Amino acid sequence: MIETPPLVDQHCHGVLRAELGLGTFEAQLIHSAGPPAAGTTFFDTQTGFAVRRWCPPLLGLEPHAAPARYLARRRELGPAESARRLLRGSGVAAYLVDTAATGTGDLTGPKGMALAADAEAFETVRLELLAEQVADTSGTVAAFLANLAEAVHHAAAGAAAFSCAPALDRTDGPLLDPDPPGPGEVRGAAGRWLAGRPRGGALRDPVLLRHLLWSAVASGLPLQLHTGTGDPSALTGFVRATAGPGTRLVLLGGYPHHRHAARLAEAFPHVYADAGAGLGRTGARAAAVLAELLELAPFGKLLFSSGGRGLPELHAVGALVFREALTRVLGGWVAEGSWSWRDAGRVAAMVAAGNARRVYRLDRP
Amino acid sequence: MIETPPLVDQHCHGVLRAELGLGTFEAQLIHSAGPPAAGTTFFDTQTGFAVRRWCPPLLGLEPHAAPARYLARRRELGPAESARRLLRGSGVAAYLVDTAATGTGDLTGPKGMALAADAEAFETVRLELLAEQVADTSGTVAAFLANLAEAVHHAAAGAAAFSCAPALDRTDGPLLDPDPPGPGEVRGAAGRWLAGRPRGGALRDPVLLRHLLWSAVASGLPLQLHTGTGDPSALTGFVRATAGPGTRLVLLGGYPHHRHAARLAEAFPHVYADAGAGLGRTGARAAAVLAELLELAPFGKLLFSSGGRGLPELHAVGALVFREALTRVLGGWVAEGSWSWRDAGRVAAMVAAGNARRVYRLDRP
Amino acid sequence: MIETPPLVDQHCHGVLRAELGLGTFEAQLIHSAGPPAAGTTFFDTQTGFAVRRWCPPLLGLEPHAAPARYLARRRELGPAESARRLLRGSGVAAYLVDTAATGTGDLTGPKGMALAADAEAFETVRLELLAEQVADTSGTVAAFLANLAEAVHHAAAGAAAFSCAPALDRTDGPLLDPDPPGPGEVRGAAGRWLAGRPRGGALRDPVLLRHLLWSAVASGLPLQLHTGTGDPSALTGFVRATAGPGTRLVLLGGYPHHRHAARLAEAFPHVYADAGAGLGRTGARAAAVLAELLELAPFGKLLFSSGGRGLPELHAVGALVFREALTRVLGGWVAEGSWSWRDAGRVAAMVAAGNARRVYRLDRP
Repeated sequence: MIETPPLVDQHCHGVLRAELGLGTFEAQLIHSAGPPAAGTTFFDTQTGFAVRRWCPPLLGLEPHAAPARYLARRRELGPAESARRLLRGSGVAAYLVDTAATGTGDLTGPKGMALAADAEAFETVRLELLAEQVADTSGTVAAFLANLAEAVHHAAAGAAAFSCAPALDRTDGPLLDPDPPGPGEVRGAAGRWLAGRPRGGALRDPVLLRHLLWSAVASGLPLQLHTGTGDPSALTGFVRATAGPGTRLVLLGGYPHHRHAARLAEAFPHVYADAGAGLGRTGARAAAVLAELLELAPFGKLLFSSGGRGLPELHAVGALVFREALTRVLGGWVAEGSWSWRDAGRVAAMVAAGNARRVYRLDRP
Repeated sequence: MIETPPLVDQHCHGVLRAELGLGTFEAQLIHSAGPPAAGTTFFDTQTGFAVRRWCPPLLGLEPHAAPARYLARRRELGPAESARRLLRGSGVAAYLVDTAATGTGDLTGPKGMALAADAEAFETVRLELLAEQVADTSGTVAAFLANLAEAVHHAAAGAAAFSCAPALDRTDGPLLDPDPPGPGEVRGAAGRWLAGRPRGGALRDPVLLRHLLWSAVASGLPLQLHTGTGDPSALTGFVRATAGPGTRLVLLGGYPHHRHAARLAEAFPHVYADAGAGLGRTGARAAAVLAELLELAPFGKLLFSSGGRGLPELHAVGALVFREALTRVLGGWVAEGSWSWRDAGRVAAMVAAGNARRVYRLDRP
Repeated sequence: MIETPPLVDQHCHGVLRAELGLGTFEAQLIHSAGPPAAGTTFFDTQTGFAVRRWCPPLLGLEPHAAPARYLARRRELGPAESARRLLRGSGVAAYLVDTAATGTGDLTGPKGMALAADAEAFETVRLELLAEQVADTSGTVAAFLANLAEAVHHAAAGAAAFSCAPALDRTDGPLLDPDPPGPGEVRGAAGRWLAGRPRGGALRDPVLLRHLLWSAVASGLPLQLHTGTGDPSALTGFVRATAGPGTRLVLLGGYPHHRHAARLAEAFPHVYADAGAGLGRTGARAAAVLAELLELAPFGKLLFSSGGRGLPELHAVGALVFREALTRVLGGWVAEGSWSWRDAGRVAAMVAAGNARRVYRLDRP
């Protein structure tokens, strides 16, 4: 049996504090452009089945409980107590909480996660949100750019990482040109964006995003890049341009392009890949997806995450599914003689927690 | 043991009525731009091996019979009796027969399939072929467009679905612009196409194809999109533009991009994916490919098909391989505790038949 | 148990003759743009683990020996004796040695490989290198082109294959235009390249590369195309343009696009795929990757290679991992009844050696 230490969840968002009905809960389960098609339910997905397998026992029910029964039990306990049980039951010692999730209601921040889970929690600062917050309080282009530099500097001192979603699948994405934009270009883009944006308007300007990415790289903090549904190979130019011992780029997501993310982590010393990519989402298939990640990614370059957001069930399922998948994949290789038992335990500890602690310097005093 | 109901094959073509020699039979086995390379045979493929595994017993031979022996037995029985035994032995209750397969000889239509298989059969109307037939009998652009609208309307009343192959891997494919073309644009394209086409010339004009696709969407009938060897992600713009409760888009094929097809079925309520994609073609690997489809696709969004065409062996193998793969994949998840036995049976029934009956409204009186 | 004959390694480079320290050895293990990230080592990869599993026993140590212990034993034996034991212990009867690997130190050529391995060795002539050598000794454009034609003709008589790396992932790659360039175009490109190149400068000019590729096709020798990290589907235009009974195109590499390479081998009679793609690199996952290749590729179109270069460990691991993966995958299909035992043995012999002997005509007198 492969032992894994308490996990570090390198990427998640907070949990909803509100009571959830069946429909509200279901809507949080998967990423969909709309409500379930007629005759279908989001519970009939790998994520839904994984939640029904792993979470009912943490709330005192049998595995595979029906959705209505599970939700009734959840209401009985209340959202706070349910979150407490789910998070504490999943063996996670530390969370990196991305505070960017807006528009999804009342999510806890790092402190709320730490309290609910009885764990450490660190902040991941979303660059787009940082720029939007600075824009809300800056009167001129010059003030905006100065305040932004200050805000990045300040965040770098207190946060564990920066994050950004550079829209890899858009043809006008910010990383078509991998180099940092010049000061005049940045001023022009900032002026246009500030003039046109509604209050709280989302930042999609490619020049400003590029400026933010390079500011984050310059800060020396690890930078998490959400690859979404795009092929991370589109990042190759930016990866080449940012190579250097001080840079740490962590590719998040990537499924079904996860093998490409692993390949980039192999090819470039400063690139890391997400070992949680899609594990909770793919449920019973998590071991298969994890095994694919473990083909090319150096074992010191893979970091667990749950990607959980809104429902503490997603954080819990991410962790429990990952742990089972890791044990099954590495244990299988030991059983067939491909790996030694000692190596398997060492790699499990790295992917589960050690790599994240080193990359994000979580243990610095 | 997971029980599956009699299948609905949501996409196939008819079968050849002619007697087939070894070479003619072999040429139908796989999609190839030419005859087998020197020193090779199409029988030495997963499809060929799957045919030799599953079909000989249906004709009274042992599994894995040599091709020559199998073909001899097939000739002995004759093509009609062979088709009868193969189709009736594969547990399919209903076929959706795409009548577009031209140039492949004398294929049975839905009625012929129903008779041979002792099953229900519905028609899938191929949009390109409909336009070509209308063009053959229309004297002017105005008559062509009016007759086309009438033909789409008429087909919508009698068929189960429309289908189209929008050439995703071509740089001038019709779906680069996802929106419906304007009336003037359509008239212009129709004029050019009607003026230039030889009798029976294939429709590839992107504007006309787009017009056809939008006509099909407007009709309210499900629309099957052949993704061929292209990445179905290229359809995202069209998918976004057609979103709505009345629309049902079914992505056919997709291997080796099937995970992308499943992801679209997850992300968009009106998108469905093909659970038969490549199963018969990949033979001994069908369970692995099916399991990949079952990672992201909501279980109410996956529909079985054989993709069979020409050889009834392909229809039979598609169904038998699918059924075995489904049983093995879902049974495995039950055995390891990931899924409950009850859920597995329910999902098997959905993917095998229930989803197709609901999406195509096969049970309406 | 599936028996496989002694292998033909259809693609490798020579081995280093020099003594190697731990760091030099490690640097040869994987393809990386730089040294391992802080806190990581290239030994902690599937390749590193596979080397530690398979190679220590060939040098008299237990499997999974620690890197330092293995390197000490290697130094004790010396590089020549280590290479001898590793190559002779891996069951390879013939190597096709690509002589293009420059800048990696003192690599053995085909003769050195034959001697060390006690095996046959054939030469694969890298087109870019051939052009560079001809350029070094040609004074004018006319002389260069005449000498190049002569060199291709001469190489075709003595070598087993040509090879080329047409940079599929570059937007200005040579195969955007699949057709052979005209004589004037070639003269112009040659003039520009010869005028601008430093001595030994690498050939990347798209027109000249296209000219080289078509010269190789015209020679009638098989042409190996390195697909690198690009999607081999980008080769479709060139593949279509070169179709013909005399042409044999062998796609090398391809992982993680190997299913696309297999699909091209299915669709086009003159295309072959690499069964070694990524097997040594993915170690414990080799059986899974091989099984994916065996989905669509006709069994007469897959050819083993190790891709080994520099370290004889990579040649040995490629062969040993492939043999185990092949046995496990095919044996599994026999055990479950999908394949017959006789078919499995026949396919194993084809992929291991027979296909390569036929395609490269290794047994011609």
